[in-house]
Amino acid sequence: MGDNIFVGIDIGGTTAKIGLVNDKGKILEKEVVHTLSSRDWREIIDEFLKPVDKWFGKNVKFKGIGIGAPGFINKKSGILFNCENIPGLINAPFVDYIKDRYKLPVMADNDATCAAIGEHIFGAGKDFTDFLMVTVGTGIGGGLILNDKVYRGMDGYAGELGHIIVVAEGRECTCGNKGCIEPYASATSIVKRIRDGIKKGYIKSYNDVDSKSIDAKLVFEKAIAGDLHSIDAIESAARYLGRLLGGIVNLLNLQAIIIGGGIAASGDYYIEKIKFYCSQVAWYSFTKDLKIVPAKLLNDAGIIGAASLILEEEKEKNILKRSVL
Amino acid sequence: MGDNIFVGIDIGGTTAKIGLVNDKGKILEKEVVHTLSSRDWREIIDEFLKPVDKWFGKNVKFKGIGIGAPGFINKKSGILFNCENIPGLINAPFVDYIKDRYKLPVMADNDATCAAIGEHIFGAGKDFTDFLMVTVGTGIGGGLILNDKVYRGMDGYAGELGHIIVVAEGRECTCGNKGCIEPYASATSIVKRIRDGIKKGYIKSYNDVDSKSIDAKLVFEKAIAGDLHSIDAIESAARYLGRLLGGIVNLLNLQAIIIGGGIAASGDYYIEKIKFYCSQVAWYSFTKDLKIVPAKLLNDAGIIGAASLILEEEKEKNILKRSVL
Repeated sequence: MGDNIFVGIDIGGTTAKIGLVNDKGKILEKEVVHTLSSRDWREIIDEFLKPVDKWFGKNVKFKGIGIGAPGFINKKSGILFNCENIPGLINAPFVDYIKDRYKLPVMADNDATCAAIGEHIFGAGKDFTDFLMVTVGTGIGGGLILNDKVYRGMDGYAGELGHIIVVAEGRECTCGNKGCIEPYASATSIVKRIRDGIKKGYIKSYNDVDSKSIDAKLVFEKAIAGDLHSIDAIESAARYLGRLLGGIVNLLNLQAIIIGGGIAASGDYYIEKIKFYCSQVAWYSFTKDLKIVPAKLLNDAGIIGAASLILEEEKEKNILKRSVL
Repeated sequence: MGDNIFVGIDIGGTTAKIGLVNDKGKILEKEVVHTLSSRDWREIIDEFLKPVDKWFGKNVKFKGIGIGAPGFINKKSGILFNCENIPGLINAPFVDYIKDRYKLPVMADNDATCAAIGEHIFGAGKDFTDFLMVTVGTGIGGGLILNDKVYRGMDGYAGELGHIIVVAEGRECTCGNKGCIEPYASATSIVKRIRDGIKKGYIKSYNDVDSKSIDAKLVFEKAIAGDLHSIDAIESAARYLGRLLGGIVNLLNLQAIIIGGGIAASGDYYIEKIKFYCSQVAWYSFTKDLKIVPAKLLNDAGIIGAASLILEEEKEKNILKRSVL
């Protein structure tokens, strides 16, 4: 298999995807395991490591293990918190635990930051030095590449987009605050707007479908087919997110914004609306060359992104060497 | 005078301050010249260069010339635009012109970015690697230090805070857009709120002063003395700015925010309010160690900041060398 093999672990609330990734961004092996609801973090982590143990036993040589998780990971301690989906992992020193087990470099980061690094090395961000990755799905996440490398901020939490306030005293958010972008522009919020309308009785264009099967994909299909309520739900979400992104473009003079997460698969229809509202509020000089594009690493973004943590670190060291020699 | 002398040129709409600065951030010589209203950019620049010519004639050896200007300066071409105050300089290639004249390194940047670099090397930002400098005066400007160096973005325009939308379809802004932070939180906006109240008749607490002498400093004095209208005007400005800064803290996980410009001199009263509203909307983990502090280089921030452009460039080269050797 060659020497440049990395392990990527993409931790989610119900399952984790674990893969072997080469330095071309190709997944060589992949397994899906359950995220245990245990309160003992070692049990949860040991379950994720079963495929790794197996590959390790077969004498596959890895260069390192990267882990992406939903929550904030402190860049110095490797400790995870604000991870409501997997309470057992909160405050767990699992990075050191895995390092000790395999005697290899191990890094962990927020899943949206991993996605940004993955897109930077292998995906839609290859040609950009300064971009924001936005993941729009159940929630809204973000990761930043600035000056051609990942930007983490003081503790490692940078890119936290979902809870920026867009409406003072606005809609309730799951985080406890009011008016965050998440309840205005997540895929969940788009679906909620439709469900609320059905409940109130004024939306009848979903009468042909079972209420349980309504998801963002369906709302996009209906919008593209001309349903005014679906167009309105997406327009509203894109207006809030596009305008927030316009503000960020003014602040960071970005080259590109990459839209990932479930919603990215909806393609041009959504991207065009985001572009419209972003350009409406940012300076023209900041948006005239700005690219807003969908992510490329769709299904496997998590594994590749996590493995990319180790690759990014190696790349960074090489750039530093080259720039002086 | 030693060898490490830099020229700083701080361009303003009515005057420019030109100084000789040493590598300890001390101003050795200083002159103020008028900003000509000429349409010929060479005439305007030649006026700024008169003190420099004089010093140069006396055989003072400079290591370089830094220029701060109100507007966007393209980092590749050195060309200035969006500089409504000095239309004669728009699109002028003055960086190359000055380089040719003295055969020395010449750099130009936005004045708030210069202020950020100056505070980073000599002022309130010395101990921070990731901070935002916000200048609050007639307008609102900003500059970013990320990963211990200035962050400029794709074209060099990063840090443009004043025209981030905080209220959709809100107050008219001088930029032509609606709802930017500037008409909600600049010193000008605080004074306007008081003047509007006086005009409408409901503010009587300024009856003892001549309308022309009302400035932000006076509004702060009245607020501290307990005048409810003045408290309200400052509270409103701080609420909008503090909440915007909270969003930026979520995005960039900053170590510090440095408040500069005319309003910084108003001290703790204002800073405490900004802290309150910033903490209200940002994640607790992002604000618990965040420092919000006033700028240190008050009157001379412009000259020192401009001179610091050259120093920052040298520092950057040295760090790169040291990190590999």
